[in-house]
Amino acid sequence: MLSEIFENVKRKAPLIHNITNYVTANDCANILLACGASPIMSDETEEIEEVTSICDGLCINLGTLNKNTVKSMLIAGKKSNELLHPVLLDPVGVGVSEFRINATVKLLNEVRFAVIKGNMSEIKTLALGTSENRGVDAAVEDKVTEKNLLAAVTFAKEYAEKTGAVIVITGAIDIVADSKKTYCIRNGNAMMSKITGTGCQLSSLITAFVAANQDRISEAVVASVCTMGLCGEIAFKRMKKFDGNATYRNYIIDAVYNLSAEEIEKGANYEIQ
Amino acid sequence: MLSEIFENVKRKAPLIHNITNYVTANDCANILLACGASPIMSDETEEIEEVTSICDGLCINLGTLNKNTVKSMLIAGKKSNELLHPVLLDPVGVGVSEFRINATVKLLNEVRFAVIKGNMSEIKTLALGTSENRGVDAAVEDKVTEKNLLAAVTFAKEYAEKTGAVIVITGAIDIVADSKKTYCIRNGNAMMSKITGTGCQLSSLITAFVAANQDRISEAVVASVCTMGLCGEIAFKRMKKFDGNATYRNYIIDAVYNLSAEEIEKGANYEIQ
Amino acid sequence: MLSEIFENVKRKAPLIHNITNYVTANDCANILLACGASPIMSDETEEIEEVTSICDGLCINLGTLNKNTVKSMLIAGKKSNELLHPVLLDPVGVGVSEFRINATVKLLNEVRFAVIKGNMSEIKTLALGTSENRGVDAAVEDKVTEKNLLAAVTFAKEYAEKTGAVIVITGAIDIVADSKKTYCIRNGNAMMSKITGTGCQLSSLITAFVAANQDRISEAVVASVCTMGLCGEIAFKRMKKFDGNATYRNYIIDAVYNLSAEEIEKGANYEIQ
Repeated sequence: MLSEIFENVKRKAPLIHNITNYVTANDCANILLACGASPIMSDETEEIEEVTSICDGLCINLGTLNKNTVKSMLIAGKKSNELLHPVLLDPVGVGVSEFRINATVKLLNEVRFAVIKGNMSEIKTLALGTSENRGVDAAVEDKVTEKNLLAAVTFAKEYAEKTGAVIVITGAIDIVADSKKTYCIRNGNAMMSKITGTGCQLSSLITAFVAANQDRISEAVVASVCTMGLCGEIAFKRMKKFDGNATYRNYIIDAVYNLSAEEIEKGANYEIQ
Repeated sequence: MLSEIFENVKRKAPLIHNITNYVTANDCANILLACGASPIMSDETEEIEEVTSICDGLCINLGTLNKNTVKSMLIAGKKSNELLHPVLLDPVGVGVSEFRINATVKLLNEVRFAVIKGNMSEIKTLALGTSENRGVDAAVEDKVTEKNLLAAVTFAKEYAEKTGAVIVITGAIDIVADSKKTYCIRNGNAMMSKITGTGCQLSSLITAFVAANQDRISEAVVASVCTMGLCGEIAFKRMKKFDGNATYRNYIIDAVYNLSAEEIEKGANYEIQ
Repeated sequence: MLSEIFENVKRKAPLIHNITNYVTANDCANILLACGASPIMSDETEEIEEVTSICDGLCINLGTLNKNTVKSMLIAGKKSNELLHPVLLDPVGVGVSEFRINATVKLLNEVRFAVIKGNMSEIKTLALGTSENRGVDAAVEDKVTEKNLLAAVTFAKEYAEKTGAVIVITGAIDIVADSKKTYCIRNGNAMMSKITGTGCQLSSLITAFVAANQDRISEAVVASVCTMGLCGEIAFKRMKKFDGNATYRNYIIDAVYNLSAEEIEKGANYEIQ
């Protein structure tokens, strides 16, 4: 199943509109090209409706959020809903400020999201209105481990039910939940957290996979999360003496570029809970 | 001839002012350093006149355009005209919105461009006011091939005559036209389209070459387009198993850094039509 | 001593708030992760107080400055002062415009800086209100060499006394001065100036080292400047045929990632003047 989803991205080459931060925009663009999709970044309110209309999916990322981009996100989100384009929300560091929380509440009220993706601290902030946040990383006590996995799965499923979105909680174990099923994914490598923007890249990747597979959104999310994790593994195997996080960053995008449908089918490590 | 133009960039080390997008700004800065020029990025209206005044050339790139940057582009463009600094326009994705079209019309009316550079869809939008645009890439029916080359050459030459600018149409075959001569360039590699911002990088590179060779602008443009294409070829030859578009991105900038005057003279593949 | 300072960064993992430019933000984030710190970039006035409050240090970088970021810098700087978080100022290209000079004067009047870091042209602009500036690089006549080193040391020490900040003047020889002592550092490689943003990366790195070693700020600055220079040396040794400035950029960040406390202790090349 994953191979078919994967091939659809290459075949349909979806154009993905990213309203995102200036820190990782370049990597998001390159990973979209690597998987066979095309990127466009635009956040000017005057053109946002037109831009999002010619695209196939919309990725909303809260990093380096400002007053103007919030407006753009709302306009683009509603327009995408109208056109039945899938919309993803990545509430980067949502707990760090009232401004981000208020923006997110407004987005959740006015836009229908196909996918909501964050680390456990971020998703808790959305679902419970509170969390222990420390910058853009998950708080230690929020990390998903084998021990607290069941609780995390239940939490994800409940929030999926409440929002109608597919919920992705990233961590050592990634959780993908819709109201019916939950997937636990064990691909990836711990060193991915030593690169800025692997989370942002994953959000763009998910949006592309979903845009090319609108008839099976949860499975498309699983395929993209497995792709990112598997590429983190493949890239890590390439690492030689003296290589560090800058080279690892390049190797992950390279791995996405070279990944085959067979490799993702074979290398994906997930189970349905 | 190309080797002399190439050496002038290294000798004069022109300072290039880029009003550009946040997706590819870093790569544009690094490619300018690679060729021997220096970059400065600034888009604040309050300082834009002073910044552009200390520079040797101005590169205007429409990616991630917003209301403020349009103002900056107009001010910087006019000031550069006054100081006789060459100005390049890269109308990235101009067809995607009324906002970009209006900004471009205003720029074309108020600023005299030494060079206008885009893919066929973008240049058609400028010249004819209409085109089949799909994001920031050329529409399939707009791609320049051996079959429609003559028509493309004629179109470029006419638009060069009309605007007084050197016109660059990028694609599998790149066209450089002034009102008298047209050059067809067959350097490059198809994989360059799998990296975000090779077009933006080329725009910065052209501006540096033109700024250092103001007495022969068309030839400077040809030299820079050949440089970018040749470096795409050299970089592609370096690619090994597991390398993908992220590594290719680095290899192209590396190739510009290492290119010699002899190599560009020998490797440039162009003809006058 | 340096090894202990170095280990403190890894152990405390300071969260560094960067109000910086969109050209080099990605590299700054990755170098912070490489040294064991964590980055957050945010410049929205509405959230800036909250963001800076959860951080351990603040890095203010004037590249691509605009009217909004100036406001954010003032708010964040004052809040950080209140919370006794160290604040660094990198007055990138301060001499290029009245706007940057005025912003810097305001910042110097309203915020207490732990560290002020720039090339000689930038620091002269701050200290003397005048200089020969050419973009974001030091003017040729401002370069620190063995010949004018004594004068440069005296100048740095006097400005340190006047401001109460540790002054860093970068160049072929780097100078670190407080009111009592001056350090001359001879690590680094000339090719570092062929990469965009090594200066910005150093600023983020210094902020992390200082945030994790608030009881000995001058020594922490020396350790970070030696780290950056030493990593420039290590990365240069890795360079092979065909490698250029793009690969060198990655290798420097890789070197920071892999550097050990022993290596910095052994490889640091500084003397107290």
